[in-house]
Amino acid sequence: MTVAERGEFGLISAVTARLGSGANCILGPGDDAAVVTAPDRRVVASSDVLVEGHHFRRDWSSAEDVGHRAAAANLADIAAMGAVPTALLVSLCVPPDLDVRWVEGLADGLAAEAALTGASVVGGDISASSTLTIAVTALGDLQGLPPVVRSGARPGDVVAVTGRLGWAAAGYTVLSRGFRSPRALVEAHRRPRPPYAAGPVAARLGATAMIDVSDGLLADLGHIARASGVGIDLRREAFDVAPQMRDAAAALGVDPYVWIFTGGDDHALAATFPAGTVLPPGWRTIGRVNDHDQVTVDGEPFTGASAGWEHFRA
Amino acid sequence: MTVAERGEFGLISAVTARLGSGANCILGPGDDAAVVTAPDRRVVASSDVLVEGHHFRRDWSSAEDVGHRAAAANLADIAAMGAVPTALLVSLCVPPDLDVRWVEGLADGLAAEAALTGASVVGGDISASSTLTIAVTALGDLQGLPPVVRSGARPGDVVAVTGRLGWAAAGYTVLSRGFRSPRALVEAHRRPRPPYAAGPVAARLGATAMIDVSDGLLADLGHIARASGVGIDLRREAFDVAPQMRDAAAALGVDPYVWIFTGGDDHALAATFPAGTVLPPGWRTIGRVNDHDQVTVDGEPFTGASAGWEHFRA
Repeated sequence: MTVAERGEFGLISAVTARLGSGANCILGPGDDAAVVTAPDRRVVASSDVLVEGHHFRRDWSSAEDVGHRAAAANLADIAAMGAVPTALLVSLCVPPDLDVRWVEGLADGLAAEAALTGASVVGGDISASSTLTIAVTALGDLQGLPPVVRSGARPGDVVAVTGRLGWAAAGYTVLSRGFRSPRALVEAHRRPRPPYAAGPVAARLGATAMIDVSDGLLADLGHIARASGVGIDLRREAFDVAPQMRDAAAALGVDPYVWIFTGGDDHALAATFPAGTVLPPGWRTIGRVNDHDQVTVDGEPFTGASAGWEHFRA
Repeated sequence: MTVAERGEFGLISAVTARLGSGANCILGPGDDAAVVTAPDRRVVASSDVLVEGHHFRRDWSSAEDVGHRAAAANLADIAAMGAVPTALLVSLCVPPDLDVRWVEGLADGLAAEAALTGASVVGGDISASSTLTIAVTALGDLQGLPPVVRSGARPGDVVAVTGRLGWAAAGYTVLSRGFRSPRALVEAHRRPRPPYAAGPVAARLGATAMIDVSDGLLADLGHIARASGVGIDLRREAFDVAPQMRDAAAALGVDPYVWIFTGGDDHALAATFPAGTVLPPGWRTIGRVNDHDQVTVDGEPFTGASAGWEHFRA
């Protein structure tokens, strides 16, 4: 059955029936607005939109995959402030001939990814459109801590990261060359695994700056460097190249460090900490903040960078 | 200059430069997420999406108009819960050949409408898309009051409304017939004037149910009736037909009560109050809640209803 045959209100019923209600949801879908707990008296909020053909392809990713990715991109932004996600709102624009099952799968993916963090989908909107578009807003709670912004890095701070780097980009390259394996890389593109819980842990440890890696590690550390008025130098030896990635890079004729340093969409968390901070499990030190004004690798600009990274630097 | 020529980051700068910062904004655009005050320890949140060709036409409405409407549709949802708007987040999908000035005008409209309520645009996202799409999320604060939901109407309650009814629909009909006047009606379509402040006032007065009129008065009161398990009977004589609307209706061969009863997008507020409540200025009593299960006018179903209303009733 198509979306048009089901109708707007039928579609909303089909979607909301699949959404669980999280502990932070005081009033869920079905009224003019939702009501969500904000125990901290502040609410963290971030919006990210996914557009078919730009951010996902239906022949590369299932509806569930797209739901997971749309939720993850937003939930990771909340974690990168040091906050705990509480709720998602989803505005969905669908072509009238789209199968209702696709929308149901999307709802399942959104709900499942949100549940990983304790959040739930509390509201949204559905409209017809010729372009399949998923606009998500995530809300979160800071639990009494100051938000970890991009501008707090200071020379001498250590730079650390948790989560995967370059996996989603490698998976994208694999898919764009017409392959469907290695499966671990393709799955990393389809469903990122952001280390949500690490965000509040880093905030509690005194992280001076934090960002979720969505544009690529060098680009995102560039955002921190510019906002903080500092430079950052990374040590290449701090980065392991996973065997699957090394093999795929060799087979495809790609420098795997381009994936690691410039690939986005894994939603790893990168943060700076005062020197001497004992990092919790899962974080690895990758470099140090200095008083220069650029992001370097072993003291030099990374020359394998993609055009995207150069564009962001401009 | 087109959006593509300006680039994503340049466009974000152009937009954020035009957005003021409201009193509720603790951290505005430029980080992974915004931080907004939530003094009540709960946050009200609603999302609404506008799609070109479905919700607006660029030859009928200016960029500023579309910004005002996109903000108004969301802010009115917050008011309809009895809450005060605190912030907007905006995800914008734009065709690459769109003029940057259009996006700047949109930002001006969004910011100006938000400022009417004390809110401001605190964050968002921009993506390329072949379909111009504006997805807005509004946040609000309940100031210690319970949310006014749709399900609280009880038989014997009075039904009241504040704000304009049918004006936006009349303006839409005027434009769709190729006319540009009466100007008051066309402007009502371009820029609704929701009675934002009336929402929290109604909550404080003990409104038992409330909704913003976006689908049409009968349809939206139908949402209240179904959620509350009640019926509602309206008195036709309670509705004035403004002279401009009467003249336009005569000229176009339209029953003006179809606009008043089934036209959406004015974002009036309709609410139910315990019998005997002294309504504040601006509210007018239009009917009464009963123990039947439908919305009637003078005891009968409204027969002039549009297909849209019939569809929603199904």
